[in-house]
Amino acid sequence: MSGIFVTFEGIEGCGKSTQLLMLVDWLRKNGYETVATREPGGTEMGEKIRAILQSGNRGDVFCIRAEILLFEASRAQHMEEKILPALESGKIVLCDRFFDSTVVYQGAARGIDADIVKFLNVFASHGRSPDLTALIDVDVGACFKRIAASNRRRDRIEQEDAIFFEKARNCYLKLAEEKRFFTVDGTASAEIIHEKIKDEFGRRFF
Amino acid sequence: MSGIFVTFEGIEGCGKSTQLLMLVDWLRKNGYETVATREPGGTEMGEKIRAILQSGNRGDVFCIRAEILLFEASRAQHMEEKILPALESGKIVLCDRFFDSTVVYQGAARGIDADIVKFLNVFASHGRSPDLTALIDVDVGACFKRIAASNRRRDRIEQEDAIFFEKARNCYLKLAEEKRFFTVDGTASAEIIHEKIKDEFGRRFF
Repeated sequence: MSGIFVTFEGIEGCGKSTQLLMLVDWLRKNGYETVATREPGGTEMGEKIRAILQSGNRGDVFCIRAEILLFEASRAQHMEEKILPALESGKIVLCDRFFDSTVVYQGAARGIDADIVKFLNVFASHGRSPDLTALIDVDVGACFKRIAASNRRRDRIEQEDAIFFEKARNCYLKLAEEKRFFTVDGTASAEIIHEKIKDEFGRRFF
Repeated sequence: MSGIFVTFEGIEGCGKSTQLLMLVDWLRKNGYETVATREPGGTEMGEKIRAILQSGNRGDVFCIRAEILLFEASRAQHMEEKILPALESGKIVLCDRFFDSTVVYQGAARGIDADIVKFLNVFASHGRSPDLTALIDVDVGACFKRIAASNRRRDRIEQEDAIFFEKARNCYLKLAEEKRFFTVDGTASAEIIHEKIKDEFGRRFF
């Protein structure tokens, strides 16, 4: 038995969390045991780490090395406690962000050396990669519009500027050349995007 | 200007925290600007990480990869926010535990590959090693006696068994062959140990 591991990626406000929920609904309606989770977080420890990562303000003394190590700690626990056991029992696991987010944000946008990011990603993910990664691509302007439209306080990463998200988006588009990725235009309606992801999922796994 | 970085190491209950405080007192009385700190912790973020690391019980699902990454995250922030700036301004920094604890506990005792531990230690410490490491050596029996004598609840690491601490102690004694270390018999009185550490400090730095 071996489950299916699908991750959702994209810059802030791209709509990936909505798409994850729509795919979960569809899979469950069709009788598939499905686990929906997110990073950072996904476990009790991970949610505590998430709170540390999102607290504070841009410009606080927040060492970028500490930041990446916290993301990886959350990931390592998430894999061992939740994702790997679910996959081993044949379930479908859908995860909102995974190690590509670290390549994009801590690597490309913050500037940590790519080899270091790779080493940490492999260690924390226990060497397991996603089977499919859905990249919901929007431009940075659209991303800021969506963040502004939500009424809640911006977290530390959402306070970054356009250049930061531009670097992140460009890195995502480069990563998406890998066969593991499926890129979809995030400016379409949620229903259209869902149809596309559903079709791609069916093509790859059914 | 370049300060002096001294770390205190040893298994639980060896008396290193007492020795650190005695050396701080002596240095301050002699007019040296001295920063006393500890790991995990030492910063606001680090203390939050410390709370995660010490919570729970032995036997909980606590991924050893997550554990080492949390220690390293605390260390990276500690170096950037507190230790490196203090050293750059010429201060003496005394730290209760540093990266040798990770070699000993997460490496030797928990079994994480030595090369991985080294990679993470170098990354998190921003490449800076202590100038002197005082190892307070006690045997595992003495360590358990001291833990038992304190009335507080044992934290997750203090709940480990004798084999765990035996591996840790043996690894410390091996590390101590390096010139950076000064090993002192922890079964002597606190005053005698303090005299020895003070003398060694003077020999190396005054």
